[in-house]
Amino acid sequence: MADETHSGELVTALEAALGADALVRDAADLARYESDWHHDYHGVARAVVRPRDAAGVAAAVRICAAAGVPFVPFGGNTGLVGATVPQGQGREVLIDMARLSRVRHVDPVGFTMEVEAGCVLEAAKAAAEAADCFFPLSLGAQGSCQIGGNIATNAGGVNVLRWGMMRDLVLGLEVVLPDGRLWRDLKRLRKDNTGYDLKQLFIGAEGTLGIVTAAVVKLFPRPEQVETALLAVASPADAMALYGLARRQCSDLLSAFELMTRVCIDLAREASPALGEPLDSPASHYVLLELSASGGVDLAALMETFLAVAMERGLVSDGVIAQSRQQAATLWAYREQLVEGQARRGHHMRSDISVPLTDLARIFDEGQRAIAALSPHLEPVAYGHVGDGNIHLNALARAGTPAADRDRLLAAAETVLFDLVDAADGSISAEHGIGLSKRAAFAQRLPPLDAELMRGLKALLDPAGLLGQGRILP
Amino acid sequence: MADETHSGELVTALEAALGADALVRDAADLARYESDWHHDYHGVARAVVRPRDAAGVAAAVRICAAAGVPFVPFGGNTGLVGATVPQGQGREVLIDMARLSRVRHVDPVGFTMEVEAGCVLEAAKAAAEAADCFFPLSLGAQGSCQIGGNIATNAGGVNVLRWGMMRDLVLGLEVVLPDGRLWRDLKRLRKDNTGYDLKQLFIGAEGTLGIVTAAVVKLFPRPEQVETALLAVASPADAMALYGLARRQCSDLLSAFELMTRVCIDLAREASPALGEPLDSPASHYVLLELSASGGVDLAALMETFLAVAMERGLVSDGVIAQSRQQAATLWAYREQLVEGQARRGHHMRSDISVPLTDLARIFDEGQRAIAALSPHLEPVAYGHVGDGNIHLNALARAGTPAADRDRLLAAAETVLFDLVDAADGSISAEHGIGLSKRAAFAQRLPPLDAELMRGLKALLDPAGLLGQGRILP
Repeated sequence: MADETHSGELVTALEAALGADALVRDAADLARYESDWHHDYHGVARAVVRPRDAAGVAAAVRICAAAGVPFVPFGGNTGLVGATVPQGQGREVLIDMARLSRVRHVDPVGFTMEVEAGCVLEAAKAAAEAADCFFPLSLGAQGSCQIGGNIATNAGGVNVLRWGMMRDLVLGLEVVLPDGRLWRDLKRLRKDNTGYDLKQLFIGAEGTLGIVTAAVVKLFPRPEQVETALLAVASPADAMALYGLARRQCSDLLSAFELMTRVCIDLAREASPALGEPLDSPASHYVLLELSASGGVDLAALMETFLAVAMERGLVSDGVIAQSRQQAATLWAYREQLVEGQARRGHHMRSDISVPLTDLARIFDEGQRAIAALSPHLEPVAYGHVGDGNIHLNALARAGTPAADRDRLLAAAETVLFDLVDAADGSISAEHGIGLSKRAAFAQRLPPLDAELMRGLKALLDPAGLLGQGRILP
Repeated sequence: MADETHSGELVTALEAALGADALVRDAADLARYESDWHHDYHGVARAVVRPRDAAGVAAAVRICAAAGVPFVPFGGNTGLVGATVPQGQGREVLIDMARLSRVRHVDPVGFTMEVEAGCVLEAAKAAAEAADCFFPLSLGAQGSCQIGGNIATNAGGVNVLRWGMMRDLVLGLEVVLPDGRLWRDLKRLRKDNTGYDLKQLFIGAEGTLGIVTAAVVKLFPRPEQVETALLAVASPADAMALYGLARRQCSDLLSAFELMTRVCIDLAREASPALGEPLDSPASHYVLLELSASGGVDLAALMETFLAVAMERGLVSDGVIAQSRQQAATLWAYREQLVEGQARRGHHMRSDISVPLTDLARIFDEGQRAIAALSPHLEPVAYGHVGDGNIHLNALARAGTPAADRDRLLAAAETVLFDLVDAADGSISAEHGIGLSKRAAFAQRLPPLDAELMRGLKALLDPAGLLGQGRILP
């Protein structure tokens, strides 16, 4: 088998169908396909192809299917569950979607955009903005992640509380099925109740039921006004009370509401030393809040009224409202850079849980306490999209943690956290998906009837089981 | 067979499992199960059962499945495609969901509500409002239709442009599968990416893949402010320009945008003679527009600013802003009563199409012209949720239409309209679904691959094919 890696009959057939320039062979070029962003997973592909269009993807799939060789789509490789890393050595063909990068159409009247799967999220957002529109999906990885991956993973991010998950933003899809047939439903319609809504099958299926090659997505008016504030709050409970107030006071104009503990600010400053102390004095918890609107709403007045009420109620002790786009970007940098700061601390436990909002403040606190109680070597980090009930409650290994203990402690941290989540009827994967890394924890919790139905869907769409083998379902 | 209607072994088994009070037998009580609201469809059930809970639904399903007898859920019977009317004479068991009517839980912090399938939409909305929340689904039939039917049909209505279709409002489901097993995913989570999102299968499947027994839905802050206006516009093109302006000027606070032709006002006044002439002088087209917000937004000022710009641009020639809730209700009465007015004119062609917004004004005009050109006996009626691209472009038979010609003319009107829709890559059923009435037109347009996948889903969930037999897929 190993001698057929990047060579052999299969590669010859792929090359004949897609052209020599569609095969990646150079060792330096191949390196990026062999690990994920966090370098938690490693593997070697049997071949890496870069088709230029949906027909090319379909051709590659047909060739793999005919040869009985497993294959997997490869997007921006920013996923956090190891799903696009090749499994094993020279087993899987990777289908890199990067060349399907066109924005096919932007309609600023109907507020829709047709875009290919390999288009980088930031490029799609820029295309919308150029037409005075707005595509709301916003993620830390938006400079690298691709629309196709966003759809496959039903991506979330910081604007979900207002505009929903990726599923809520998709109006149409084009998909290569596991047998290489192309299925298309690229209508630009807001409402269409004609039969079963097949596109829902592929959204959030992590590329295991089909390979998305293009989509029609919803756009919104470009927010001409954005108000951003970073606020000091005394506790997660106060943060949630503040959220309730913001939701009601600011109507549907609240576009982001992020909670961070103090250590998040420290991590952001480690990654980006130019960032100063954000407020006059340090606080235990920070809320990063954004209102946005187009047109005639007096958004600055709305923010001021809201904050006045919040301070009067004692929910906010200190804070800053950005006075410019530059200052708003700096406030967001604390939220974005903390992820890089975590990565610099080395291998760590990253969670992505959601719980009912009524339990969130309690679990935010209890989760950190439970992790800290496991070992003095563990440092809990907690932040997230609390308006959606979604938090990233992580554990870092402090400097000096014995190497032999590290992985065991991080695994134990995940276990105590997941126990809390289970007791609250929460989710162990709110937005990152299952992939490889959450597979065991997922299988452990999956009711038998759900497992039967999921396997039934997999068998219906991919009877040979060659697409995204082992992802989600073992 | 006919002698086993409402009697025989099957009925005995249902009675033993569900209790004698769960069987409907009285002829007067049975009448309402034998036709739809418009009296377009007629049939006689083999039995009608009224289970009191999900376990009862499951028991009824198991008994039918064991006996090989087809069965179908029955909700508020307000559907417009004939799906809940029993097919044939004494063939199908109807499972009436009305006794599953509890609101199980309202959470004003997490903005969620758990409600049983038989709960009438208006009752669900009232329960949300009692907790200072808002459930946004709004339909003409909301006094009778049920949440379960809303989910099964992926209901739309007048607020879709802001809050989405029913699919967008569902967080969790409880479903009795066609083999009688109960599947539950009633988590109160905004974000949950753990495996395939199975609940999507049942939403919009018109009760053919499972019977929804309960759901968790999203709530929103109760809008404390509502601004309603009825505006005269010169043409559909001006209406669409006005919509574009409203969308951008009013940010995400635009909650309804309905377009009606003059005849709609006449029909509403026929049904409800207390309604006067709405504006100083008659207009060719009317837009009914609503802004709503909670909290600190100055909504009255926003409406005034928006209308000033609209008048300055010559998009609006006359109009009225409601000065009270009572006056707002009167403005809405034109939109609501026109449906009753149509019904009083007798059997007519009702469509429910959607097209890309860029084509909407053209098709709104062309569709009416094409219908009028077919015969002087046909009177076109056009109105709808134009912000969603969804219009009801109908044809009435004028008084004096020869009875022998009527059905042929109405069918021809649908054909010319659907041709326009097809050419614009639109949908022949934006929100009403397929059921029985749209089945032939749907089948004619269904790509073979879509048909294969839909049949595959049906076979996976309902291999015996007993649930909702013949609905959607012949």
